[in-house]
Amino acid sequence: MVQKPSIPKGTRDFSPLEMARRNYIFDTIKKVFRLYGFSQIETPAMENLSTLMGKYGEEGDKLLFKVLNSGDYLRGVDNSLIENGDTLKLAAQLCEKGLRYDLTVPFARYVVQHRNDLQFPFRRFQIQPVWRADRPQKGRYREFYQCDADVVGSDSLVNEIELLQIIDEVFNRLKINIAIKLNNRKVLAGIAEYIGAPDKMIDITVAIDKIDKIGIDNVNEELRERGLSEKSISSLKPILEIDGDISARLEKLETLLSSSEIGMLGVKELREVIAGVEGTGMKSQVDLDVSLARGLNYYTGTIIEVKALDVVIGSITGGGRYDNLTGVFGLQGVSGVGISFGADRIYDVMNTLNLYPEELQQSTSVMFTNFGAKEATCALKMAKELRSAGIAAEVYPDSSKIQKQMKYANAAQVPFVAIIGESELAEGKMTLKNMNTGEQQLLTAEEAINVIKHR
Amino acid sequence: MVQKPSIPKGTRDFSPLEMARRNYIFDTIKKVFRLYGFSQIETPAMENLSTLMGKYGEEGDKLLFKVLNSGDYLRGVDNSLIENGDTLKLAAQLCEKGLRYDLTVPFARYVVQHRNDLQFPFRRFQIQPVWRADRPQKGRYREFYQCDADVVGSDSLVNEIELLQIIDEVFNRLKINIAIKLNNRKVLAGIAEYIGAPDKMIDITVAIDKIDKIGIDNVNEELRERGLSEKSISSLKPILEIDGDISARLEKLETLLSSSEIGMLGVKELREVIAGVEGTGMKSQVDLDVSLARGLNYYTGTIIEVKALDVVIGSITGGGRYDNLTGVFGLQGVSGVGISFGADRIYDVMNTLNLYPEELQQSTSVMFTNFGAKEATCALKMAKELRSAGIAAEVYPDSSKIQKQMKYANAAQVPFVAIIGESELAEGKMTLKNMNTGEQQLLTAEEAINVIKHR
Repeated sequence: MVQKPSIPKGTRDFSPLEMARRNYIFDTIKKVFRLYGFSQIETPAMENLSTLMGKYGEEGDKLLFKVLNSGDYLRGVDNSLIENGDTLKLAAQLCEKGLRYDLTVPFARYVVQHRNDLQFPFRRFQIQPVWRADRPQKGRYREFYQCDADVVGSDSLVNEIELLQIIDEVFNRLKINIAIKLNNRKVLAGIAEYIGAPDKMIDITVAIDKIDKIGIDNVNEELRERGLSEKSISSLKPILEIDGDISARLEKLETLLSSSEIGMLGVKELREVIAGVEGTGMKSQVDLDVSLARGLNYYTGTIIEVKALDVVIGSITGGGRYDNLTGVFGLQGVSGVGISFGADRIYDVMNTLNLYPEELQQSTSVMFTNFGAKEATCALKMAKELRSAGIAAEVYPDSSKIQKQMKYANAAQVPFVAIIGESELAEGKMTLKNMNTGEQQLLTAEEAINVIKHR
Repeated sequence: MVQKPSIPKGTRDFSPLEMARRNYIFDTIKKVFRLYGFSQIETPAMENLSTLMGKYGEEGDKLLFKVLNSGDYLRGVDNSLIENGDTLKLAAQLCEKGLRYDLTVPFARYVVQHRNDLQFPFRRFQIQPVWRADRPQKGRYREFYQCDADVVGSDSLVNEIELLQIIDEVFNRLKINIAIKLNNRKVLAGIAEYIGAPDKMIDITVAIDKIDKIGIDNVNEELRERGLSEKSISSLKPILEIDGDISARLEKLETLLSSSEIGMLGVKELREVIAGVEGTGMKSQVDLDVSLARGLNYYTGTIIEVKALDVVIGSITGGGRYDNLTGVFGLQGVSGVGISFGADRIYDVMNTLNLYPEELQQSTSVMFTNFGAKEATCALKMAKELRSAGIAAEVYPDSSKIQKQMKYANAAQVPFVAIIGESELAEGKMTLKNMNTGEQQLLTAEEAINVIKHR
């Protein structure tokens, strides 16, 4: 039976060119992570569902890919769940494993599980795919990569500063112009206190997060629906209207929040981070955005979001500080701060702006022609010499017509073709053809190495 | 509720040191693949189950990890399958996706699906994890990496020769002493013909594959059980007893199989591959082993197996030629040949023999101390200068006691510590301490870069 080949929706194959581009992004990020002293770890694709469930909200539980138990997975299953069609509870009996949904929860699990082997503060990075059963759409996939760097075991804001330097350095190297937005969860808590609704912080932030999209009137309407009093809403207004440069805004915020201890602490932290960043010199814009919220469920301090300036796309990197991520796994009081590069969105930005270096497209530098057994043996030897000098070479495997071999070389964008015919064979040389200029030279392997290396 | 953290059995976390070691192996393999003109692709972790099922035998189907459908996965399920406990058929209704079991079937699917975008012969490599619901045991995992290189669209033996060169080069670079065993499926078919049992090739090879373990008498007993006549068994004996060096053995094999067309073709191919390999000069032992079978189900020509000489472990690399791998997906007549490095076994060999370069263990080159806000700001600036010169540096985030900071530096095996106290701050310098020699120097950032780069 012949099958029409396809892959699950929301997943992708990556061709050699796509891989070269993606590797360029990943390698740039990795190199910067390493320059900042972060060490790589990896965790399994499958985690126990007990590790994952309940960590991403009710919606997240539904979006987890669950792996059917091996063997007799029906044994011990509660039949009433089948009869009632209670698929969510039944899934927990049919499946004890799931695919990782992000890198943060597996990392928290890792830190707790290996805490006796780790040196704190622990600086780790992790670049691996994650899976979500989201409805696929443009720019949203069911399998995509996350690139995370976190420091756990230190509440110093020096970590925030270094992570912001990493963001600056990575996007500089990738030539993507960005704006970094900063906020602090304590400022949001302070705002809620200030307007007399300390228990409504989440409602407030969910609403004001939309101010750019829907305008202040609609935000106020939403705040009313969420049960905020008119007094609270009117006292929120001056905060949302704060303007000026960063230091002017910080000053006004400080004045407004002066009665809230937590709010003042948030402003102080923001000041320290911004001063640190300015002190070391960053190329990217850094801005304060009091409406920035991001994954409020576990952030407790600094909140970071990065936007690309030249492409309309969602945030391409984000992060923040969390004070109790490992608590659910039994390790209390470990503060951490991390950032996550959205590799797939960065890839989209790089593609849109065509920011890749040109030489990325090439893999092989030299293709040796093949005109028969003797010539191929000679080519194999010479190719080996070139490779010893670090030059990527391949021997065309079949003694096909020269046209077919050259067509292959052209399609593969090979910069040099080494022709070995009868006369070259007799002399122990190759005719090296530069595919850009058309220039041909009769050369020994050693001479060819020089030409190729110095083009 | 506090959860005791754990991971699914048969899976592993990789610590920074383990990652450094694994990256060393993967990077070595990748570098050699690229030197030979192979381009990287990646395929999704999840494939449609229809792509995977039936490709690995009945046992393989059971060992596939199946992913529960999202949403109402019970809809449309045949209830009699639940009542009868027919878990295998039911799984096919509950799950339409599975985790990839190897890289070969996804690659065949890839070639067919993208055939109009590919240039043949297509040389691809792929390094990704695969998943099997095998019973975990020492050296056998449920998640492990494969590193495959294949050429499809060419039946030239030049491909075999280049793949054998790759094997030689990779293990040379990794400093693992190996023996490469070669055989050819056509020789096995010729042997079956020669002993008058052309339909028993698989029975014969399964039996003679065990000759080293159980001896010839037990092999003969097994052949009897598998229905071979005494005449067949006695005519097999001289083949198994062939000795001498490779060329002597090839000659004797040729004489014995002279009446079998396919057998003679197999010997001719072996001769050509061995001559090609010898002609280009390989460091590894290459030997002929007529009892070598390996995954007979799809190999049709050359068969390759690699053993480590200094560690008792199963084969660490294998491969061979297949003539119709893409046929099941609708593309006939595409010959391919490939090799697969068993990264996890290679990792075990490297660990046993401690073959890693020493500098692997280090990530950060310099740790800056932190004695307070001003000193930290200065450290952040100087660290940035060092990083611009490619030196990995980190700033200790907290202004803890010096003992604690030095303890961290020691545990992290950082080769240099940069101390910035009051006097260094005044001078705009650092005291750079070499952690191996204990030597200390007062230096500017630029001077420190020189010292660190030239140690």
